[in-house]
Amino acid sequence: MAATSITAMSKILAITGGVGGAKLALGLSKVLASDELLFAVNTGDDFDHLGLHISPDIDSLTYALAEENNQELGWGRQGETWQFIESLEALGGESWFRLGDKDMALHTQRTQLLNSGASLSDATASITQALNIAHTVAPMTNTPVRTIVHSDQGDLAFQHYFVREQCQPAVTGFSFNGLADARLNPVIENWLERCTGVIICPSNPYVSVDPLLKLNGFAERLTDLPVVAISPIVGGLAIKGPAAKMMAELDVPASAYAVAQHYEHHYPGLMNGYIVDKTDEKEASRITDGLRIPTIATNSIMVTLQDRVDLAHTTLGFLRDLTP
Amino acid sequence: MAATSITAMSKILAITGGVGGAKLALGLSKVLASDELLFAVNTGDDFDHLGLHISPDIDSLTYALAEENNQELGWGRQGETWQFIESLEALGGESWFRLGDKDMALHTQRTQLLNSGASLSDATASITQALNIAHTVAPMTNTPVRTIVHSDQGDLAFQHYFVREQCQPAVTGFSFNGLADARLNPVIENWLERCTGVIICPSNPYVSVDPLLKLNGFAERLTDLPVVAISPIVGGLAIKGPAAKMMAELDVPASAYAVAQHYEHHYPGLMNGYIVDKTDEKEASRITDGLRIPTIATNSIMVTLQDRVDLAHTTLGFLRDLTP
Repeated sequence: MAATSITAMSKILAITGGVGGAKLALGLSKVLASDELLFAVNTGDDFDHLGLHISPDIDSLTYALAEENNQELGWGRQGETWQFIESLEALGGESWFRLGDKDMALHTQRTQLLNSGASLSDATASITQALNIAHTVAPMTNTPVRTIVHSDQGDLAFQHYFVREQCQPAVTGFSFNGLADARLNPVIENWLERCTGVIICPSNPYVSVDPLLKLNGFAERLTDLPVVAISPIVGGLAIKGPAAKMMAELDVPASAYAVAQHYEHHYPGLMNGYIVDKTDEKEASRITDGLRIPTIATNSIMVTLQDRVDLAHTTLGFLRDLTP
Repeated sequence: MAATSITAMSKILAITGGVGGAKLALGLSKVLASDELLFAVNTGDDFDHLGLHISPDIDSLTYALAEENNQELGWGRQGETWQFIESLEALGGESWFRLGDKDMALHTQRTQLLNSGASLSDATASITQALNIAHTVAPMTNTPVRTIVHSDQGDLAFQHYFVREQCQPAVTGFSFNGLADARLNPVIENWLERCTGVIICPSNPYVSVDPLLKLNGFAERLTDLPVVAISPIVGGLAIKGPAAKMMAELDVPASAYAVAQHYEHHYPGLMNGYIVDKTDEKEASRITDGLRIPTIATNSIMVTLQDRVDLAHTTLGFLRDLTP
């Protein structure tokens, strides 16, 4: 495979949130070996629910890499059934978070591992290995970080905003409880010592990528590395999730341009290249000129596995071109 | 219904363990109204597993009274599926206790209620009401009691003996951790103030009935009441569970006689009447004469719902005959 030689000496760090980023992550995992690619995953969406530690972004990536993700639903696990949650509802239990019967096993096993003293990183490694995933899925930190959505209906824990309230409240901002005291996962720290390039997957900039980049010293560690981000906004819409709705509510135009501007404003000089969808080809030159960030346009709407692999190749090629 | 007039003024306490006792319990629930019958249930089999508080005997009775018990398996819930436990096993989790997907909902809801401060009795009431069970299912105590099986393979927590080791170890005795400090459930205490008769269901005398009768002051409270027990041993065999195997290992003949002897030895004068299966008709007169406990023989093998109702009628009629 051409890309294998291109990236033979690569040590790529891919920063990702949930479902959207996980699509590119799967593509990257088909192109790079497990010693060439490490995933750093948002844990700000994690929450404790029904006595379980739930890590939605880690789980979305895990199911995607195991090719066990539920393609009909767009979230959760393949071949899922709902006997647990329907029975819980009938007993008067809390059923707004739709836990599938198979999915319950993952949360239960993680919680058991954490309760027996494992770090979130070790628990994740145990689970991904059991699912025959070769690549390392590294939670951004082993310290609990909890994203809070500030909204016209008050402060909401992320899953309460995202699932229970179905993103209806209008957001006014975000905070990340525990982030100031959180330490970057040592697995990621070690990888950074030999890292040759960074990919920011097409995930929500506010609630998926920011929690990672705001981690103590993390963004600073990336400044000497080539960093390419892929826009999660295509033609003014979010492919998945509430990113476009959030931008509108924050009085930011929902555009690929605005996402680049967000990264450049908060992490000046961090991003060395940017990828937008071919729908937004006109924005590419505006970004290249206006923000002085080299930007290319390509197909970034990943429907098939081949789409995922193609975008992975394009991203890695671009990253190579940006490497001094 | 004839029995309704017979027992119109009854306040019956039925002492029961799991599946075996629950059969008669269902029969009794068809004959007596919810203000005429209260179930006092063993909690010595309870255990904490995968972060859940599991109460096997309460659950067996709950599913039986809701007519949701799994008749194919002989345990657990009707219409059950196994996606959770099979997925947990694939993740390397602890899967020897076969938790069904629907069953998980009950354990999760109970654990949530307990963690939010409810007593086991209140949590049970909430769950049984949600399942439209009219009668009160009263855990023997709200204090944790844990049955320990002493065996040739050392001391085993009850579910480890019963499920994980499938009753293979040879028992040498039993102890009940926490029993000395446990207080009888106040719901049962209140019922005893107006109680007119007690039925000891055909449950295992060692691990289902003894934990109840050994509760502080409980057996003493019953001495002035008519008490009828039904033998769980029929023709030298246990209808359900390891009672006969345990008796053999404890060097006690596995017989209806030996069960009566056990009760009479440990709780002298408690039992006023005893019911054996018609298979053991010859034992009935031996028990009446030898132990001076009036004993009748009837069909106690409950296959159909009508069998359960019939035994309930027979038991209540016998109890009435024994009432001064």
